[in-house]
Amino acid sequence: MNKHIVFVLFGITWDLAKRKILPAFYNIFSECVNEDCSIDIIGVGRKDFDNKDFQEYISEDLKNFISSYNQNKLNILLDALKYCKINFADSDSYEKIRDLIPANKEVEVVYYLSTPPQLFTTIVKSLKEIKLNMSNSRIVFEKPFGTSLDSAKNLNTEIRKVFKEEQIYRIDHYLWKDVIQNIAAFRFSNMLFEPIWNNHYIDNIQITVSEKLWVEDRWDFYDKSWALRDMVQNHLMQVIALIAMEAPYNLDADAIKNKKVEVLKALRLDDNFAKSVVYGQYEWYQQENWVKENSQTETFVALKLFIDNWRFEWVPFYLRTWKNLKEKVTRIVVEFKKLPNILFNKNGELNQNRIVIEIYPKESISVEFNIKEFGQSDKIKTVKSIFTNKEEWLDAYSKLITDIIKWESTLFTRWDFIEESWKLVDNLVECKYNCPLVHKYKPWTSGPDSAFSLIEKDGRKWFN
Amino acid sequence: MNKHIVFVLFGITWDLAKRKILPAFYNIFSECVNEDCSIDIIGVGRKDFDNKDFQEYISEDLKNFISSYNQNKLNILLDALKYCKINFADSDSYEKIRDLIPANKEVEVVYYLSTPPQLFTTIVKSLKEIKLNMSNSRIVFEKPFGTSLDSAKNLNTEIRKVFKEEQIYRIDHYLWKDVIQNIAAFRFSNMLFEPIWNNHYIDNIQITVSEKLWVEDRWDFYDKSWALRDMVQNHLMQVIALIAMEAPYNLDADAIKNKKVEVLKALRLDDNFAKSVVYGQYEWYQQENWVKENSQTETFVALKLFIDNWRFEWVPFYLRTWKNLKEKVTRIVVEFKKLPNILFNKNGELNQNRIVIEIYPKESISVEFNIKEFGQSDKIKTVKSIFTNKEEWLDAYSKLITDIIKWESTLFTRWDFIEESWKLVDNLVECKYNCPLVHKYKPWTSGPDSAFSLIEKDGRKWFN
Repeated sequence: MNKHIVFVLFGITWDLAKRKILPAFYNIFSECVNEDCSIDIIGVGRKDFDNKDFQEYISEDLKNFISSYNQNKLNILLDALKYCKINFADSDSYEKIRDLIPANKEVEVVYYLSTPPQLFTTIVKSLKEIKLNMSNSRIVFEKPFGTSLDSAKNLNTEIRKVFKEEQIYRIDHYLWKDVIQNIAAFRFSNMLFEPIWNNHYIDNIQITVSEKLWVEDRWDFYDKSWALRDMVQNHLMQVIALIAMEAPYNLDADAIKNKKVEVLKALRLDDNFAKSVVYGQYEWYQQENWVKENSQTETFVALKLFIDNWRFEWVPFYLRTWKNLKEKVTRIVVEFKKLPNILFNKNGELNQNRIVIEIYPKESISVEFNIKEFGQSDKIKTVKSIFTNKEEWLDAYSKLITDIIKWESTLFTRWDFIEESWKLVDNLVECKYNCPLVHKYKPWTSGPDSAFSLIEKDGRKWFN
Repeated sequence: MNKHIVFVLFGITWDLAKRKILPAFYNIFSECVNEDCSIDIIGVGRKDFDNKDFQEYISEDLKNFISSYNQNKLNILLDALKYCKINFADSDSYEKIRDLIPANKEVEVVYYLSTPPQLFTTIVKSLKEIKLNMSNSRIVFEKPFGTSLDSAKNLNTEIRKVFKEEQIYRIDHYLWKDVIQNIAAFRFSNMLFEPIWNNHYIDNIQITVSEKLWVEDRWDFYDKSWALRDMVQNHLMQVIALIAMEAPYNLDADAIKNKKVEVLKALRLDDNFAKSVVYGQYEWYQQENWVKENSQTETFVALKLFIDNWRFEWVPFYLRTWKNLKEKVTRIVVEFKKLPNILFNKNGELNQNRIVIEIYPKESISVEFNIKEFGQSDKIKTVKSIFTNKEEWLDAYSKLITDIIKWESTLFTRWDFIEESWKLVDNLVECKYNCPLVHKYKPWTSGPDSAFSLIEKDGRKWFN
């Protein structure tokens, strides 16, 4: 049976479509399209283009963003691509989209919203108004999904009036990174590690996510709280959930998502909030031209969380995230407990064992343990076994689109996960308003001094 | 204070002295001899030599066995070496040894017996007769220490009439191999491994020791039981003890030895003896010219043992040892339990985790675990992190002699360990007499078929 999928890509002329989504289509197109499956792409935007002009315009841009340029391959994609000009606010203009969708009930339509999030509700409502929300259609949302618990709830309510939960695909592209997918595989494929993956043997877990500044960032979108709302709410919560979740009963999407949500429900901020969260803002921030006067938006946050469940009670999770630093790094460190100060660790000098999962700059899993140095020496040294992603198979977006085609929703975010993560972040933002000390720090450093004392007062250190 | 050590090396013209002991002295001499320490070596033998003849004779031989020949370095060793001809059976002739020992109470004498073991008692008795058993002297015995529990007990009783336990150094040169010393360090320096080092997580332990045939082997010395008496009694018992011992309260020699002996005391043969031991003899064996007619000496043994203690009850230890095989291999495999047949192991295809400690051909420690293949694949693969001894620092004998100089007895075998290991081996030999089925096997293979069924009937396989 011939499968025919029509992607309706809202925001085709915006940066994300040109940088990520269309290059991903370029990568997968020849693999996904075959006798059993054909794909059309309807690019929806506000600008004036006829198909030919549009193809030329997009072709020029694409060449900058695709990794191995091949004109034939590009032509195949361009042939499948049609342009559709609409006025987002005018639902009547959406009829033009319908005109481009083949009038065949077997056609599966995927609405992919890569527009600014302010347009999500508008688009969804319009789709309903002209009854384009067919039961076999899907709708895909780029992040952010809301900017607070309330806004996310409102957005979700509007969407659920139009689409069922199983039709909704909320993106966190982090989840398509190979090493992120490896976390569950690593945890549940090894008798060496699963039995010690708990508060008896793990001393603490550190998660560091730092990003370079993009000029196009507009942090005030997040209403005076960038790091918490943009970073903690999605990437960090996903990582915590994968690290801390219990084994699901199988690998089905909902079985895994249930376990992940359970982690978020057990998350707890320290009672002594002031001592367990540090906000920072880099020194030049106030001079950036898009910044409002006296902005208290944090560009850095470090915090200590606990998970109140049987497995992880008492194990501190130390989180740091910031922009504008000396290097882009994303890393999870699972640090095991100290050895007793006897035998080979009599002087307390041996390193604690660690499992380090690096997401950037390299995707890798590294296990650090101690052995006696070979040779006559009695010295114990720490060795690392690092397994690195050497191949660049497909970028996250290519895998993501492939999953959408397959109705594979495991790596998309279910509403209850988003809800729980906004609850926590709202809590943190609330507390920030109540104790709004935002520490200055030098750009290109690892944040304010108080981020170091946050962990050091517990007798621990950030792992570098 | 100047330390002056005199090594009295009995059996100086025998193979072991020329192959191993003198080359070891050659290696360490310049390092050990300095302002604070001088060393003399008295080579004791039956042949007629004056010092000059002897030095020439030994010099020629030595050149074949030392790794980096340097005449100056060799001369320094030869200068320290004096020859002493005695009649081993005539204690009066031992006076000649006394004449060569400086008459200074501070001199420490080390008697090093690298003679055939039949001479041990004779030599020890003679030393007593002429009162050369000074309280600051030591005596070193090459293996084997006895050929049965009774003979070992008799030997030990004679020695203990002359020397105290702390003066007695019984050699198992295995213990000086770097990777063998690494076993305890690896176990007790890692929170990753210590908590799972028990019967909850370990499925089975396999120890394989195979040696190439030496023409000079005279297995009938072991009274119709080679593999058990030569291999199981010392090397295999040492390895089992290090793998299974509890943590000692510190790293002192006796603290460690106590824990090792406790393992041997808990060793248990399976009640169904016939099903848990396999003897083999390679096909040509009966034709070897030194072999007695219809000899039932085993050249192969495989057995299953248990350790009846809290940590290892129910974990089978599978042992194999043989000579005359396709390759020399010495390997310990700690195999962890199977994963449940769910999640990533739904089809039961994932490898069990293993820690492999290889002693020969390469000294290495390898940790095997599973990760998801990087790339789009969902396949879980097994990766190995191998840490290998790359440097050839010092051979076992060099380290061993250095330890003797330092009165460091940790790696020498205490009497109770030998006693316990002979108890077990005597038991095995006894059983062999009662069910003397010795299976033929082709040389250059891994033993008789029944050695494979020994482990396969338990649903396991020998690891290769």
